[in-house]
Amino acid sequence: MIKIAVLGYGTVGSGVVELIERNGALLRERAGEEVSVKYILDLRDFPGDPYEDKVVHDFGMILDDPEISILCEVMGGVGAAYQFTKQALEAGKSVCTSNKELVAKHGAELLAIAGRMHCNYMFEASVAGGIPIIRTINSALLADKVESITGILNGTTNYILTKMEKEGADYRGVLKQAQELGYAERNPEADVEGLDTGRKIAILADMLTGKSVDPDKVATEGITKITTADFAYAKAAGMTIKLLARCGVSGDGSAWAMVAPYMLPVEHSLGRVDDVFNGIQITCSMLGDAMFGGKGAGKLPTASAVAADVMDCAMHPGRTVMRAWSREEAVLSDTAQLESRFFLRVKASESGAVQAAFAGSVPVAAQREEDAGFFTPAMKERDCQAICAKLGDAILNRIRLV
Amino acid sequence: MIKIAVLGYGTVGSGVVELIERNGALLRERAGEEVSVKYILDLRDFPGDPYEDKVVHDFGMILDDPEISILCEVMGGVGAAYQFTKQALEAGKSVCTSNKELVAKHGAELLAIAGRMHCNYMFEASVAGGIPIIRTINSALLADKVESITGILNGTTNYILTKMEKEGADYRGVLKQAQELGYAERNPEADVEGLDTGRKIAILADMLTGKSVDPDKVATEGITKITTADFAYAKAAGMTIKLLARCGVSGDGSAWAMVAPYMLPVEHSLGRVDDVFNGIQITCSMLGDAMFGGKGAGKLPTASAVAADVMDCAMHPGRTVMRAWSREEAVLSDTAQLESRFFLRVKASESGAVQAAFAGSVPVAAQREEDAGFFTPAMKERDCQAICAKLGDAILNRIRLV
Repeated sequence: MIKIAVLGYGTVGSGVVELIERNGALLRERAGEEVSVKYILDLRDFPGDPYEDKVVHDFGMILDDPEISILCEVMGGVGAAYQFTKQALEAGKSVCTSNKELVAKHGAELLAIAGRMHCNYMFEASVAGGIPIIRTINSALLADKVESITGILNGTTNYILTKMEKEGADYRGVLKQAQELGYAERNPEADVEGLDTGRKIAILADMLTGKSVDPDKVATEGITKITTADFAYAKAAGMTIKLLARCGVSGDGSAWAMVAPYMLPVEHSLGRVDDVFNGIQITCSMLGDAMFGGKGAGKLPTASAVAADVMDCAMHPGRTVMRAWSREEAVLSDTAQLESRFFLRVKASESGAVQAAFAGSVPVAAQREEDAGFFTPAMKERDCQAICAKLGDAILNRIRLV
Repeated sequence: MIKIAVLGYGTVGSGVVELIERNGALLRERAGEEVSVKYILDLRDFPGDPYEDKVVHDFGMILDDPEISILCEVMGGVGAAYQFTKQALEAGKSVCTSNKELVAKHGAELLAIAGRMHCNYMFEASVAGGIPIIRTINSALLADKVESITGILNGTTNYILTKMEKEGADYRGVLKQAQELGYAERNPEADVEGLDTGRKIAILADMLTGKSVDPDKVATEGITKITTADFAYAKAAGMTIKLLARCGVSGDGSAWAMVAPYMLPVEHSLGRVDDVFNGIQITCSMLGDAMFGGKGAGKLPTASAVAADVMDCAMHPGRTVMRAWSREEAVLSDTAQLESRFFLRVKASESGAVQAAFAGSVPVAAQREEDAGFFTPAMKERDCQAICAKLGDAILNRIRLV
């Protein structure tokens, strides 16, 4: 009998408990023994809840119970979650988490403890819950080198951008609607400014580089400046706009990571990953390109990912499954050095000046009078920035091209 | 030091040897010891080949060499490949294969031997080489129930259909071109009649049902009857035509599997999986829908999948990783009972009669004089078949809708 504890009885926590209950027979068959939830840790009480009797408030009970071999940390945050995870791993108990902030910040340390104690720190649910990307990198691409990853990793911003595109609605209005529907938080900064996405790409970059990528050093640009006018030009060019997280390791071993809105062709494999879906494109030296899509969040998809980690721990007692990355900080290349093409939306009256300043740029025709659009040739971010600075308020918006 | 033998030095075999050589440092780091190819078994000699000295002609040498713990069977066929695989597994050596025919036909038996001998029979490369679908079902969805799978699993037919769609070219001409380019075999039946696809979906259905699905009993329809006229109607309706492999387990536990061309909206997640790419959509009870895309074949993508299996064996000595399925035959539901909508292309002169016979059918407008197109309402395959039989040669083609 494998007994687990669930830390945090919110949306994901209740999903994990529900899944383990509903799929009990299947889990027993696959793990070779029964898997059941013994404790649910939460500060609140849940009178009337079917699992009311499992709720405890004292983490010590869980830590000291030798029957508990696996914990699901679905509390979030880097305070108590960090302390509890560390203590559990040091006691040789495996921890499965959906907490991207904690993995991005302390992953290397926690994985090292798991390795030392022959248990596991698993985090499939921390990035794109409905896509088994962590397992794919950790074990499906065992013989291959992942060179780069491009992903749509945040459902809230993807929902907003999709609505803006399909309905021609403006950012503020769609955000408000998303908040009313519960798709966006009342305080939406972590999503719309790209911080949530930045943490997720930092985790993937950790796995690619084998070192610790500081999520605070991932160059991040959000979606708040994207307008319906930008979408009008994108549409005229057969393109769309998505918030992309990207990272890679260049031939010389240097690593880079960034989050920003990009214009990309609708036929691009991420071009029609819409609404709350996530999509990840991965480029490997042998396999070439592979693409994964699925729900990014939601109670049951996330719970399915956490529970798959629980099963992996249950089936590998005494054995560390996840490859760790080192605590040494990965030095990220300055993104100002990265090259791409840019879309520029400029004041109509300054259209000639912009075209002159960006030699080789191509106009994008959209039926608008107020502004004009251009695609620049491929150039370094720094150079584009410098020319735009000179042109001052002639430049209304600037969006990278994939 | 982990020493392996590669059985068959064709395209995939040479890819495996090349990959293990090129990624040696990475494999050593991940496996914790060196991985190297000791033998290459082939009937031919390869004078001048850089690995000429590893080529042997006698399987006995490999079988009797205690240094060899892992074999890659990339010969194909169900004759010698079956005998060699069985002998190796019975000697406790793991086998990694790309041989879909063998896995589809004798998978249950070979997995049982591997389980008994505490070694592994691995077959990631047998279905959609560039997509880690076997691992995903075996270990990423450990806590979830896969309800159904729909895939584009054959690059040759997908290349032909894509060319027909994009260039308005007819089947014969595109097939000839594909043969000249080496994308289709000189004897293309196994691909174009859907047999190759049928074997692959049988393997996935084995994993879903936990029983043995006889590949010869998978209802299979090829692409040879698809015409440019069908694509004209598909285009008019915003759709395309793909050869889909589908399988599933219904709520009552009954299983079904089939291969047939389908019309599907271009926005469907498989609608723009074009050319030689493969795509797989998977529906789980908790996770919902997930989608995977990548190269279906090719030397290095397939080699990457075989080598990932080798690494998994290397990292799990004495431990069986793959869940086996039973040798008991899965009883497949009669596909005549399955329900779907159908596209019918009919003689223009018989258009009225067809519309009368299929109450509730919807005309599809395309600029053609010779024929007319209809979408039927959802109906059982058997019922559609019966009405079509009555209408005789008024029906020019019939294609299922997704």
